[in-house]
Amino acid sequence: MLRSVDVVAGYSTYIELIRPMIEDKTIISTGMTQEVKRVEAAIEQALNANSCAIISSGDPGIYAMAGLVFETCKLKNIAIAPPDAGLEDHEADATLEVEVVPGIPALSAGASLLGAPLTHDFAAISLSDLLTPWEVIEQRLEAAAGADFVVVLYNPKSKKRTWQLERAQQILLKYRDGQTPVGIVVSAMRDKQQVRIVSLENLHREYVDMQTTVFIGSSVSSRYLDFMVTPRGYARKYDIGGSKESGG
Amino acid sequence: MLRSVDVVAGYSTYIELIRPMIEDKTIISTGMTQEVKRVEAAIEQALNANSCAIISSGDPGIYAMAGLVFETCKLKNIAIAPPDAGLEDHEADATLEVEVVPGIPALSAGASLLGAPLTHDFAAISLSDLLTPWEVIEQRLEAAAGADFVVVLYNPKSKKRTWQLERAQQILLKYRDGQTPVGIVVSAMRDKQQVRIVSLENLHREYVDMQTTVFIGSSVSSRYLDFMVTPRGYARKYDIGGSKESGG
Repeated sequence: MLRSVDVVAGYSTYIELIRPMIEDKTIISTGMTQEVKRVEAAIEQALNANSCAIISSGDPGIYAMAGLVFETCKLKNIAIAPPDAGLEDHEADATLEVEVVPGIPALSAGASLLGAPLTHDFAAISLSDLLTPWEVIEQRLEAAAGADFVVVLYNPKSKKRTWQLERAQQILLKYRDGQTPVGIVVSAMRDKQQVRIVSLENLHREYVDMQTTVFIGSSVSSRYLDFMVTPRGYARKYDIGGSKESGG
Repeated sequence: MLRSVDVVAGYSTYIELIRPMIEDKTIISTGMTQEVKRVEAAIEQALNANSCAIISSGDPGIYAMAGLVFETCKLKNIAIAPPDAGLEDHEADATLEVEVVPGIPALSAGASLLGAPLTHDFAAISLSDLLTPWEVIEQRLEAAAGADFVVVLYNPKSKKRTWQLERAQQILLKYRDGQTPVGIVVSAMRDKQQVRIVSLENLHREYVDMQTTVFIGSSVSSRYLDFMVTPRGYARKYDIGGSKESGG
């Protein structure tokens, strides 16, 4: 995929991770707050007939860059189509092909390190209130907690956003036992990886940063030795009986 | 990963997909209803000092086989540990190492084919009521719909379970506009792949099967040309302004 492109755009930290693979490319490398500029520069390259890859960590479609590409094209009224859309020649000339290449999202990477916390229904919620009012986030925390979803928290804390995780913990504690297992995965699959399983009532004492994903168990999640596990169903909870349906 | 194992266990359809890679292995291949037998046979192999891989499609941790491995070990009181757990020799002898290798879940593969429907908060719900009472599923649909999550439906329909998807559609329509975009992805990344975007009010007319994942937009999801997109936030909805936080 990367081999066939002319230009690679990305957050500078991620560019450095793959620099040996892209030494013959034009590189658009920008800081963390420069997402919009980066995407606009990439689209401009593509409009000038340079094929361009925008890189992301994890899955580009989950809380990540893919959405911004489409938002920007829509705002600027740029014609786009999926690859192999069967366009006529004259349409193809004026249309950008946009392909999203899926990856392993942080929720999958983190879950694999914890055991199997996501074997049943879950809700993913970002605690960042920069682009979403806190009331919306809080309503989602209440709804997910009340309906017994496993809850996966993205962006739990940053240097400037310090109180949101504890507020989320308090909301969850209205519905769940204090002993509910919580998985904390910092920098999954990277050098500084940390994996911990704690109880919900102690979550506020734990180290959590922007590279962390937090997994709050449902009422049937449990800890077995050093693993966090959510069983596949509610009926016949401990009868290991056959189900003929699964996601895998 | 596969190269280093002695035994490969899997649903026969998936075994056939990778047969050229595993011709020198002992193969435990069973039908779709034989999940429990398959996992028990794999664990027995591991207890007999044969390293064993259980394969899954998508991500083994999301509605898939990883959970059953842990459930079975817990039930049978088998000691397990993550790889590199730093066990003493005598512990290592009596302990199985269990490693979950994450993959690209159907929700990521499907989202990538639709555009970017999962750029903001979402809930994953299985409509299979074989192991979960329908009342629990319905409560989750209500909660996710009411709190404006994008909703990803797994196991939407099977030959025997035919009414659940339409019931889910009705619940969502209590909270969302009939024109809400719904992405339907059948057999993502496989031969019979189909990708469609329809409106919520027409969902019941669409072909959906067990290999299908259904993505129901939130109130801010929209369609742009042949893509389905959920923007990154609610505040400043159409101001493409920088956020310094994301999942990727």
